[in-house]
Amino acid sequence: MALVQDFAAIVGAANALTGDDTARWSKDWTGKYCAQPGVVLRPASTREVSQIMALAHANQQSITPVSGHTGLVGGTYAPGGVLLSLDRMNTIHAINPAARTATVDAGVILSSLHDAAEDRGLIFPLTFGARGSAMLGGVISTNAGGSNVLRYGNTRGLVLGVEAVLADGRIVDLMTALHKDNSGLNLAQLLIGSEGTLAVITKAVVKLSAKPRNVVTAMAAPRGLADALALLNRLQDATGGAVEAFEYMPKHYIDVHLGRIAKSKPPFAKSYPHNLLIEVATTTDMNVTEVLETELAALIETGAVLDATVAQNIAQRTEMWERREAAAELTFWRHPIVDTDIAVPLDQVEPFLDKINARVAQIDPKADPFYISHLGDGNIHYAIYPSSDDADLKDRLVEAVEDVVTTLGGSFSAEHGIGLSKLNTMRRRKDAVALDMMRKIKGVLDPDAILNPGKMIPDQS
Amino acid sequence: MALVQDFAAIVGAANALTGDDTARWSKDWTGKYCAQPGVVLRPASTREVSQIMALAHANQQSITPVSGHTGLVGGTYAPGGVLLSLDRMNTIHAINPAARTATVDAGVILSSLHDAAEDRGLIFPLTFGARGSAMLGGVISTNAGGSNVLRYGNTRGLVLGVEAVLADGRIVDLMTALHKDNSGLNLAQLLIGSEGTLAVITKAVVKLSAKPRNVVTAMAAPRGLADALALLNRLQDATGGAVEAFEYMPKHYIDVHLGRIAKSKPPFAKSYPHNLLIEVATTTDMNVTEVLETELAALIETGAVLDATVAQNIAQRTEMWERREAAAELTFWRHPIVDTDIAVPLDQVEPFLDKINARVAQIDPKADPFYISHLGDGNIHYAIYPSSDDADLKDRLVEAVEDVVTTLGGSFSAEHGIGLSKLNTMRRRKDAVALDMMRKIKGVLDPDAILNPGKMIPDQS
Repeated sequence: MALVQDFAAIVGAANALTGDDTARWSKDWTGKYCAQPGVVLRPASTREVSQIMALAHANQQSITPVSGHTGLVGGTYAPGGVLLSLDRMNTIHAINPAARTATVDAGVILSSLHDAAEDRGLIFPLTFGARGSAMLGGVISTNAGGSNVLRYGNTRGLVLGVEAVLADGRIVDLMTALHKDNSGLNLAQLLIGSEGTLAVITKAVVKLSAKPRNVVTAMAAPRGLADALALLNRLQDATGGAVEAFEYMPKHYIDVHLGRIAKSKPPFAKSYPHNLLIEVATTTDMNVTEVLETELAALIETGAVLDATVAQNIAQRTEMWERREAAAELTFWRHPIVDTDIAVPLDQVEPFLDKINARVAQIDPKADPFYISHLGDGNIHYAIYPSSDDADLKDRLVEAVEDVVTTLGGSFSAEHGIGLSKLNTMRRRKDAVALDMMRKIKGVLDPDAILNPGKMIPDQS
Repeated sequence: MALVQDFAAIVGAANALTGDDTARWSKDWTGKYCAQPGVVLRPASTREVSQIMALAHANQQSITPVSGHTGLVGGTYAPGGVLLSLDRMNTIHAINPAARTATVDAGVILSSLHDAAEDRGLIFPLTFGARGSAMLGGVISTNAGGSNVLRYGNTRGLVLGVEAVLADGRIVDLMTALHKDNSGLNLAQLLIGSEGTLAVITKAVVKLSAKPRNVVTAMAAPRGLADALALLNRLQDATGGAVEAFEYMPKHYIDVHLGRIAKSKPPFAKSYPHNLLIEVATTTDMNVTEVLETELAALIETGAVLDATVAQNIAQRTEMWERREAAAELTFWRHPIVDTDIAVPLDQVEPFLDKINARVAQIDPKADPFYISHLGDGNIHYAIYPSSDDADLKDRLVEAVEDVVTTLGGSFSAEHGIGLSKLNTMRRRKDAVALDMMRKIKGVLDPDAILNPGKMIPDQS
């Protein structure tokens, strides 16, 4: 199309990729949303993003923003379409140690920000398995979660300001580094988590935190999930809320990990039904290792914890984290798959698992549930490998998960977002007035529906 | 008007107040926005709020929501208009100690929530001087700040879910108690801080925190503001971020407090130019009193702190807080007044004060600046008593504050909101594209502009 040449004129021919050059964007982590885009535009500046959107606006051309392309819900799926990749906009403009903020482009890789912060004795606490590829633009657009939300909150709470380009190419400057700023509607909070449907986020100011001086990482095998929750509460009280991660892995997960990952090791000499990865960290001189060992010992005494092992060095800590962070890889290699990402109140994780496992067995006796949980957030990545790829069967399984979640006061979408994969769920389960508000806001900020069309907000039907 | 009778039929005649019965809503803390409303409607339920809005919608009747009526920016000013008071909807529906959440109606008084949380060994950390009258609906609608934002964040970070009634009477259910919930645009975050212009907030789920076991409160006289900042950083490092309040009062404030409040006492035997109220609190067994005394002693040794006194009992702690919390009373008794509420990066508070005091002296040599600061947030309530009530003079003073704030990378509106008092500033200083987005969102969610018209979002002009 002639429009491609006009787009290429903005970013330079070398940065308007087609055909095999788009391979990196044609694959997908999940294996579900693989498609070759028509063209991948790689602007170098907010100005170029603005020019791309102005041209797209004038021609009613759909644009799908993409940064690290590590999402799990098809949010950047655009077969034959125009992808706007932020990957060349990857400058960390400033790290301000006094104010504990960083100013970053949307294309900065999450682990690059981690490194830059660490160099100044600080941390950007948000982290997850894909941190070596995920970029801040996507992190912010999806309000990403991860393993440290328990301690530091999700992305929404870590972003102070953003710059973004609207559907018509106008740039909106919402960049603030202040912790108090009540100047009208909070548009930054509206754009965070909007999955590229309202604007292209180009820049952000994020909060950094003090780097903990004392860190301890351990694996523990609680007798049951109620015992796990009791352990979490004891640790929070004893450390003043210094639990950074409290991750749950059932036996099935451990077994699949051992089976599929070369050099993987079991967490304990014996195999246990329930396994926790625990990390506690503090900026004070509290001896968190001693505190953790004391609490674990007390619960081993009562039988609430069956076994525990504390990392003695970096290699052991890394091994513990690699086991947990293999989750996406261990989940998405097998097909067909029904992938869900739900949250329930902390004390409802066990009831959720009991109920849904029974329901799945009823609906599809040969189905194989596979799950892992950010237990400290009540967030469960509950996947099911159904006995067939039948769309109706898969939808019945999804509805079963939704039913149980709704009964328990939970959310059908905790941290991965909606994208394409949960559009039906959104249509069925989200408050109808809320959906109408979303459609109205989308309609007025992107009247031609050119920004990531078809994602997140289901059509009226 | 006949419409009043229809409204009265919804809430009951006894709850549709007119004339002298509206006295409580005809006064205003600031003295600037006193006006008798035409009628005050006091619904008892979300259903009644919905019916009121549906009727208003059908008749294009403006409605101004009000709860505690303690705002400082004219956000509930509606001379002759229809006030919708949430004060009868004052039930605390649930305190969930396990999940550390509370479910509250919009008319719950802030201090009632404090008390209810304390009864369960928890706290709702947001607090400020007007807590005995302010209600959660207003707290959420204005994204209120206060003295503990440094430690616990502002309202936006403490609200998990809301229920609200839209301009056309529809109820939107965004009630969630989950810490992870990515299900479409975050409409709750859009409504928080929207000052009643988009919806009437009727209910909310808010986060509670563990009640600190060890608390210490002190007054300190730093040599200068740079020394104060150094003290803050030392305390944060030594306590792992346990500083709950770090409040600044200059000598002028102390003097006015002594002059105007019966039984007030000076903080120190001597008078100092700079005075801090410091509170540190922890859920751990850390001896925060010892830590604070050690840090203060070290800085007294170097001369960075000139004097300090640690509260020895509840009476002394109360005295310290009463001094600080008299701020609104001490600010708004005198007229004419130019009232601002700004924020700058932490290290720019002193430059801000130096520059603005010089500018004010230039513009109006007889003007008297009066200020106090949430120093830990870089938030300064900078008021000026000009030599005359001349509108042009007052506007020049406001513009001078805006100029200095802009130069220092600050915000012209930190925590009190925009209401009527900062409409000109919004028009002049807020990003033009952001203003356009706000107008578009307002236009599509409240097309007849019946919800708190004329507030927060300036007209195009």
